[in-house]
Amino acid sequence: MTQKRVAIIGSTGSIGKQALEVIEHHNNYLSVEVLTANKNADLLIEQALKFDPNAVVIADKSLYLKVKEALSSTDIKVFAGQEALEDIVQMETIDIVLNALVGFAGLRPTLKAIEAGRTIALSNKETMVVAGELVNNLALKNKVPILPVDSEHSAIFQCLAGEVYSPVEKIILTASGGPFRGKTKDELKNITPEQALNHPNWSMGKKVTIDSATLMNKGLEVIEARWLFGIEANRIEAVIHPQSIIHSLVEFQDGSLKAQIGLADMRLPIQYALTYPERLKTSFPKFDIFSCSNLSFEKPDTDTFTCLNLAYKALEIGGNMPT
Amino acid sequence: MTQKRVAIIGSTGSIGKQALEVIEHHNNYLSVEVLTANKNADLLIEQALKFDPNAVVIADKSLYLKVKEALSSTDIKVFAGQEALEDIVQMETIDIVLNALVGFAGLRPTLKAIEAGRTIALSNKETMVVAGELVNNLALKNKVPILPVDSEHSAIFQCLAGEVYSPVEKIILTASGGPFRGKTKDELKNITPEQALNHPNWSMGKKVTIDSATLMNKGLEVIEARWLFGIEANRIEAVIHPQSIIHSLVEFQDGSLKAQIGLADMRLPIQYALTYPERLKTSFPKFDIFSCSNLSFEKPDTDTFTCLNLAYKALEIGGNMPT
Repeated sequence: MTQKRVAIIGSTGSIGKQALEVIEHHNNYLSVEVLTANKNADLLIEQALKFDPNAVVIADKSLYLKVKEALSSTDIKVFAGQEALEDIVQMETIDIVLNALVGFAGLRPTLKAIEAGRTIALSNKETMVVAGELVNNLALKNKVPILPVDSEHSAIFQCLAGEVYSPVEKIILTASGGPFRGKTKDELKNITPEQALNHPNWSMGKKVTIDSATLMNKGLEVIEARWLFGIEANRIEAVIHPQSIIHSLVEFQDGSLKAQIGLADMRLPIQYALTYPERLKTSFPKFDIFSCSNLSFEKPDTDTFTCLNLAYKALEIGGNMPT
Repeated sequence: MTQKRVAIIGSTGSIGKQALEVIEHHNNYLSVEVLTANKNADLLIEQALKFDPNAVVIADKSLYLKVKEALSSTDIKVFAGQEALEDIVQMETIDIVLNALVGFAGLRPTLKAIEAGRTIALSNKETMVVAGELVNNLALKNKVPILPVDSEHSAIFQCLAGEVYSPVEKIILTASGGPFRGKTKDELKNITPEQALNHPNWSMGKKVTIDSATLMNKGLEVIEARWLFGIEANRIEAVIHPQSIIHSLVEFQDGSLKAQIGLADMRLPIQYALTYPERLKTSFPKFDIFSCSNLSFEKPDTDTFTCLNLAYKALEIGGNMPT
């Protein structure tokens, strides 16, 4: 594999930290060019000292001096502020920008990186939720590939490999169902944030975990899939699959389906996006088919978890309704 | 899709008949160039009158006149005998040879077709079991693709699409376990052929069905996979999956797995081989993920079903031991 220099936008979050594990594991092929954080200056400094990037950005300007000072004995360039974040993704020495920001804040760095022709590894689903059509057009114009990092979208992307001549009948997004699967509206009246944060399968950031508990996350993923794969909403289906082993499926028009399977470990889709189209050997724990005695599938309870249908409605209305 | 003219070697057997259903369904793209049968002259005649091939072969010479007479009002050429079978696959007007013979008899027509540069859709697993290395070398020399038709090998082939840069860690062949899954040696002392022919999931020819009941079929498929995909036997694993929904899996070296999924319907892998690399729309019954409440996986009981390990042993010894 040829060397790739990675910019991690949001390196102190859950995805950012796991991406650094992947890069550390494959430091023959992957190196860190840029790290950025919002407010977590301590971790950003620690990461910078370990991975020796070309530059770092701390979005919160009040923390600039702290970071600058801590890295003063190194060659690492230090920048601060939101504008610096948007400029840095255009650096010519970057091969791939991993956008690991959470929420709407992820949009502008994606657009800037695309304008500069940088390949995008997209973990920030809100980029596609709020501006999917715009982002697609810009990426097409600049011939920039957008590689999904979300586990479901990575699964779909993996299943679509080599299927250029295969019209897609349906995309089936799997969902664990979160900690409240099977509960009624009444039973959910007095839940606490702690309960909602207790996800049965995935270790993720807080926003995504809460969104998983309400199925809002799956709704956002439906919108994301609609734009990432250019497929109409009525061909995207969400399925509750509590074991989180099948990460999503694609049904082709001949009736054959392909599924991507593995442990619920975000390092796998992160690595796939960073090393695509190659796959590198990992030493992460591996899926053992004999340990999975029962894979099941259910229709989502959209009466109790109303957020999922909201996403379909927003897509149907179109325009900036998903925003 | 460009038109493809198909020669079906063994058109009156289970795979041959299902291939004709596929061709009838897609008669804009697929046409019948050659049909051959061993002894079933009546069905061969019926098929010839319906599909109007260029030529037919009846292997049993004593039936030549019967077929000739029945087709006398048509332009269809009629040949008889084993040699005719081997000659006919070399016809220049054939785009793809579907070898749907059962057993060792399938080898020579495969070799002849490869020598003539015809693409092979291989249902006859014995071709690879008895002469995998020889067949591979000949196919390589003549630049002939060998497309698998066996459902498990089609599944693997589908999972490998687009994965040129992805070293394979393991191939996992699924097996239904047949009608005797879970039974002990003692319980199997007095079984009848009728019981063995009562396969829980697949409708297949008699030989394959009996071989499924003993797991011999899975053993043959291990050897077939070893040569079709150029992978060592210790990376091929058989897994009992009683629901026959996942038709096989490929594990890549990054720990990601891909699986091909669908109803247990041989028309799907037959069609995939005939239309590859395209997928055409079908009206066959479709897999419904909500109807599958439980997918399970078990280790095969190789103490009771000893044939599976015989296949691994034969591969280990090598040479002509699998033969």
